[in-house]
Amino acid sequence: MPGKNQNSLEPVRWKNGVLEAVDQTKLPGRLVYVRMRTVDQVCSAIRSMKVRGAPLIGVVGGYGLVLAAMKIRDRDMSQARSQLRKSADSLISTRPTGVNLRWAVERVFKASSRAGSVESLGDELLREADMTLREELEAAHNIGRFGSALIEDGDTVLTHCNAGSLATAGYGTALAVVRSAVEEGKNVSVIATETRPLLQGSRLTAFELSKDHIPVRVICDSAAAQLMAQGMVDKVVVGADRVLGTGHVTNKIGTLPIALAAKFYDVPFYVAAPVSTLDLVTDVSRVVIEERDQKEVLLIGGWWVSL
Amino acid sequence: MPGKNQNSLEPVRWKNGVLEAVDQTKLPGRLVYVRMRTVDQVCSAIRSMKVRGAPLIGVVGGYGLVLAAMKIRDRDMSQARSQLRKSADSLISTRPTGVNLRWAVERVFKASSRAGSVESLGDELLREADMTLREELEAAHNIGRFGSALIEDGDTVLTHCNAGSLATAGYGTALAVVRSAVEEGKNVSVIATETRPLLQGSRLTAFELSKDHIPVRVICDSAAAQLMAQGMVDKVVVGADRVLGTGHVTNKIGTLPIALAAKFYDVPFYVAAPVSTLDLVTDVSRVVIEERDQKEVLLIGGWWVSL
Repeated sequence: MPGKNQNSLEPVRWKNGVLEAVDQTKLPGRLVYVRMRTVDQVCSAIRSMKVRGAPLIGVVGGYGLVLAAMKIRDRDMSQARSQLRKSADSLISTRPTGVNLRWAVERVFKASSRAGSVESLGDELLREADMTLREELEAAHNIGRFGSALIEDGDTVLTHCNAGSLATAGYGTALAVVRSAVEEGKNVSVIATETRPLLQGSRLTAFELSKDHIPVRVICDSAAAQLMAQGMVDKVVVGADRVLGTGHVTNKIGTLPIALAAKFYDVPFYVAAPVSTLDLVTDVSRVVIEERDQKEVLLIGGWWVSL
Repeated sequence: MPGKNQNSLEPVRWKNGVLEAVDQTKLPGRLVYVRMRTVDQVCSAIRSMKVRGAPLIGVVGGYGLVLAAMKIRDRDMSQARSQLRKSADSLISTRPTGVNLRWAVERVFKASSRAGSVESLGDELLREADMTLREELEAAHNIGRFGSALIEDGDTVLTHCNAGSLATAGYGTALAVVRSAVEEGKNVSVIATETRPLLQGSRLTAFELSKDHIPVRVICDSAAAQLMAQGMVDKVVVGADRVLGTGHVTNKIGTLPIALAAKFYDVPFYVAAPVSTLDLVTDVSRVVIEERDQKEVLLIGGWWVSL
């Protein structure tokens, strides 16, 4: 049944009023969960990329608002909703590019209008956050089912960054396509770009595919074009931070040169994403591309590579 | 005068029978020289990339053969030359892709035919190795002089890997073009790709340009296309490991996607290289692309990024 996913990692879970998510900065060395009890802790986990992946931060952001609701002591509903609005805005501002975060937080915020009292706010929001999680997991399985039709037995699939279990409520987007093809009995091997600066490919994609016994090799980001030139890549499948109505795709830095090389060498290039990644409103010129701390490039594993 | 180069680093020097070269694996943290007294030490310095850069390993390989000649105790000239031949082959085999190494080692080997006796072999070869160094340094200055005509005041030049002082006998190839333009009074700034896996861009190019007070910013390799899409790159200038008669260029992994992006976004793309990098004989299908240890990708600064 979609929604069940015993084999893959459980990247996020709600346990007795505490939000737990895999601390992705510690992988692959250690599999530990970060425990969040306040909206500030959720914002900080997203900002520091302990929790990352556009669909996953949507789900986590939704639960973040539940934590905010549970902390509200004000008995006046309009006061409570205005406090909740502030928390929603804080959550949304943590990562500007991915659109799932805004989508999920707004969805959970809207559930506040269904609450009859401030006392029931937390439960009402929790119900919506749980539903978001379930629907996103189901969407991931559907992406896999639809996408696997594009994958042939024997294919080598190149992917960039981590669009896997760890980027979603579970199962993945791009990696859902691979998982589903493998579950259907196809032989599929994956080439994972390491994905500088934060190495989500070598740290996360290689980790979760190895865990599922799917063959995976890690390459430098800059080697993708050469492998295509040598005919070593059959398909490219990536996830997305945002897909516009015009078809523009925003995704991790480094997706563009892979798309250009795929075009040049006639390698099919697919974007796998749930409906929550669609943004049919914003114009491409208005999409904010997040710029992060230069340390992420210049400091590697505690070592300053440039002076 | 070409050949003089007080401001830039002296990447290689011969001092009282000892070959010294900057240990490029220690940069930018420490500027230390590796001292080589035997051909084996030279082979090992090249293989471990303490000494790297196609033109530089040519020069160093030539001096490596001088060290071999100085060690020969056999008094018979044909025995001596056959020992020398073995050393030449060892040197050439250390790095298969760059063609300058073969070119310089063969050139110095040929000088052995001019030696009247085994006793004079070392001096004869040293003369040739010195001449190779001087000519390569002069070539670098000429590359700068010719190439700077392509650079306009205000240009931002993107370069990949390190094609600078540290890759050559001094002054550089791609960076010679930049240096020369700056010396002519043009405002030029450089975008250096970090160049995974060994980070020659962030470690070496940023280091030597900063030392020369030329503005430089480091980016992830995979960000080059995006900067071109945003109009932030005026020219691309790279070095080369080998340039064939057909115009095929072999260079550091990651040069290809930059070339594809430059083509797509109409950014002029130049290859700066000395005559020693030309290979008018070999067919493109016969060029051996070196494959190195997977540790270079998976182990960063002592940290295993993938399990």
